[in-house]
Parts: sequence; structure tokens; C-alpha cells
Amino acid sequence: MAAEEFDPGAVRAVAFDIFGTTVDWRTGVAEQVAHLARRRGVELDGAAFADEWRGMYLPSMGRVNGGEREWAYLDVLHRESLDELLERHGVAAAFDDGARGELVRAWHRLPAWDDAAAGLARLSGRYVVAALSNGGFALLTRLVKAAGLPFDCILSAELAQRYKPDPAPYLTAARLLDVAPGELLMVACHGWDLAGARGAGLRTAFVDRPLEKGPAGGADRAADVPADVAAADFADLADRLGCP
Amino acid sequence: MAAEEFDPGAVRAVAFDIFGTTVDWRTGVAEQVAHLARRRGVELDGAAFADEWRGMYLPSMGRVNGGEREWAYLDVLHRESLDELLERHGVAAAFDDGARGELVRAWHRLPAWDDAAAGLARLSGRYVVAALSNGGFALLTRLVKAAGLPFDCILSAELAQRYKPDPAPYLTAARLLDVAPGELLMVACHGWDLAGARGAGLRTAFVDRPLEKGPAGGADRAADVPADVAAADFADLADRLGCP
Repeated sequence: MAAEEFDPGAVRAVAFDIFGTTVDWRTGVAEQVAHLARRRGVELDGAAFADEWRGMYLPSMGRVNGGEREWAYLDVLHRESLDELLERHGVAAAFDDGARGELVRAWHRLPAWDDAAAGLARLSGRYVVAALSNGGFALLTRLVKAAGLPFDCILSAELAQRYKPDPAPYLTAARLLDVAPGELLMVACHGWDLAGARGAGLRTAFVDRPLEKGPAGGADRAADVPADVAAADFADLADRLGCP
Repeated sequence: MAAEEFDPGAVRAVAFDIFGTTVDWRTGVAEQVAHLARRRGVELDGAAFADEWRGMYLPSMGRVNGGEREWAYLDVLHRESLDELLERHGVAAAFDDGARGELVRAWHRLPAWDDAAAGLARLSGRYVVAALSNGGFALLTRLVKAAGLPFDCILSAELAQRYKPDPAPYLTAARLLDVAPGELLMVACHGWDLAGARGAGLRTAFVDRPLEKGPAGGADRAADVPADVAAADFADLADRLGCP
């Protein structure tokens, strides 16, 4: 679907989105929210709460990228959204500062999709593989370590002080990896992320994560997302890029 | 030897110097220099050449940290030193631009010390383990990958645009890892690196690499380097930090 023909041999490094693409944020956050709420004597639908929380993610980053506010760490944005959400659900009184900190850290420890570690290991045999997420550098380092994902390095929007889909994090990633933008392949399950990457001159790979937003659907699907490559999961991506 | 008592339990992340501390730059560069010289029909003593080249390293970085020149990537400094060295050895004519680029890239692929990978794996079980070198981000990512070293993330002086022992790279590392300077332990076989780390508020671990500068000696030794911990190698360091 790209204007220029895509040549996997011209790719020198592969950057992976994390939340949704590599790890299942919804299941992870829902379980931790339900668990922490129960401990505070409150009943919360963890999955619905996770969905609402995630729904506030793009707008909150948009205010940074739009220049309405200075750079703010993802944890700070998550905390502001959380404060608003707890009010909305009428449970603000049940969560003190410490408990809110614990909830924010739910985003620091999330389960990888089943195919992620093995697919990354195969891709790593041929390419430099990097995490490239809007999560902060420390958050990503700890999340990737806990999930046992064999990335060669961690990159983060924090290093550019701008969030994806602004061009800056993509171009900063290419610069730090010492490759041309067109030699870097961005892998994501979100059309907005791949559109940002393409705008910055990167090549793009869509990975289908039909359950990202839960069994009721709502995830982006391959047919709707222009990309150089479309894959069912990381194993299929390794196949398509010719990695044994 | 430190003013405050050292508590390994207060350490949250461990940063490792790379050239000399984790990889044997002298053996790696000497072999590649001798090999590339032979291919150009020139005889060079690879080890002596590597020593001279490395000897120009600290002064060249000092000119960046001292404000005499703008930030320059380690590859650029290596290339400038190389140009001077080839003239000095009367072999400048034998090395065109491409051959000089190959020589500079000798620093991108170096053998790890025998204890490094296993020691890192043990330390990684308890701590976040990071590479923190004056080498560029891309250089380090590729070097660490080729040597099979299980770091959780790559950090580089490049991210601070200042070289160690300036405080900036140490403080940038702590900030990106989201730990206080006093929660970050710097591991190196060089007194100058640990002095810089201590000055920035980090804790310090000396690792003995008696062969770093070759069999004739010249490497820093534990008795001469103030540090919170002194270890014979990465296995001994893991023992001293209580890592199973």
C-alpha cells in the first residue's frame, strides 16, 4: 500500500510500540485495578475502568504535542486522568495518594502477548530490535525486563520530549540507532502510530491485536490501516521479514 | 572507603562502563587493526597502535567537556585521532576514507571479558542493569548485542551530550532510570570514571581488569581507587552484592 516498494533487506532496525502491540495493557490494568479497588473496599469493573483510562491517553498527550503544556511524563498524565476518573466514579475518597500511585504503576507491569517474546527473539537474529513507546524510559525498562522481552535497547518518547505521533520520537529513534528514517521499521497495532511513523519517513508494519480493546472489538484492523507489511502477530511478522 | 556506609539494599540500578570494564577493547582493536593493515599491505603492531589510539581518548573527550568544541560523537573523535596516528606512523597513504571507516568500526565489535555475560545475568536477577559508556547509543547497542551481554537497557554519554567524567551523563542516567543518584551504582575499572560518578552522587564499584592495558600492566588497581565496593570481576561483584 506504500508508494515505494518495500524491501525488507533495506531495513536495519525494527522499533516496536509496546502498549497494545507488545503487551496486553487491558488485561493487565483491569486485573490490577480490580485487585487494588477490592483492597480499598470498593467494587470497580476493572476492564471498563481500564478502557476509560486508556481513552484519556491520546487527548492528554495531544495537549503536550500541541504545545498547550510542557513535556510531562506519562506517569503524570496517567495520574491526572486517574484523579478525574476516580471522581467520575464517585470513589475518590477511597484512594489516597499512595493508592493512586499504586494504580499508576499498574501500567509498569503488564503481560506480553503470547507470541511476543519468541517473535522478538527471531527478529533479533537479523535486526536491531528496539522498544519505542510513549511510556517513559524507566517505565519501559522495567516493564520489558519483567515481561522477559529480548529487546536490544529501550527508546522512549521521553528522549525526544514529544509524544508519538509527533515526528520527533520517530526521528530521535532513527538518529540514536544511527540509521536513516527509511531504514527503520515501526511495528504497531494502531493506525495513528503508523501514520505518524510514515509521516516521519519510517517504514511501517501493522500487527493485528484484535483483542487489544477487549472481546467486544474496537481494535484497529489490517484492512483499515495503510502499512508496508501487515502481520497476524510477531511470529507472522518474523516470517514475512524472512527471519528463521 | 566512602564517607557514608554502603548498603547494597539501597541500590536500585547498576550502570556498567563498557570499554575495558565489560569488553576487552585492546585485544579486539589490536586484532582488527593488524588484520586490516595486512589487507592494505602494511605491517602495524596492532596492540601498540590500539594503545596509542586509546591514549588519545581522554584528551579528545576533554576538549568537548571543557567547552573547546561542540558535542562530537565518539566515532568522530576516534576518526580524528586515527588520522593523526596514521600520519605519525607514516602509513596515511595506505588507508583511504573507506579503510579508515572500517578501522573506526573496530571499536563497534569487541570481545566481552569471560566473566561478563554470566555475571551480568546474575546481577540482572536483582537489579536493573544498564550499559553507561562514552560510546554512542548505536555503537553500544550493536556492540552489546554482538557480544551477547544481557543488559536491560543502553545508556550513553550521547544522551547527555557530555562525556564521562562530566557529571551530566551520570545524572542523566539516574534521571532516565527514575532513581536517585545515590541509588545508582557505577561499575568501572577506571579511577577517573568512578571519581566522576562519586562527584555526581552515585555509589561506586571498582572491578579489577589487570590486563586491560596489556600484559605489561598499567591498568588501575583496587588499592589506588576509592570505591564503595571492590571486586575481582563480575562474578565476584555479584557475590558481594548478594546476587544468587
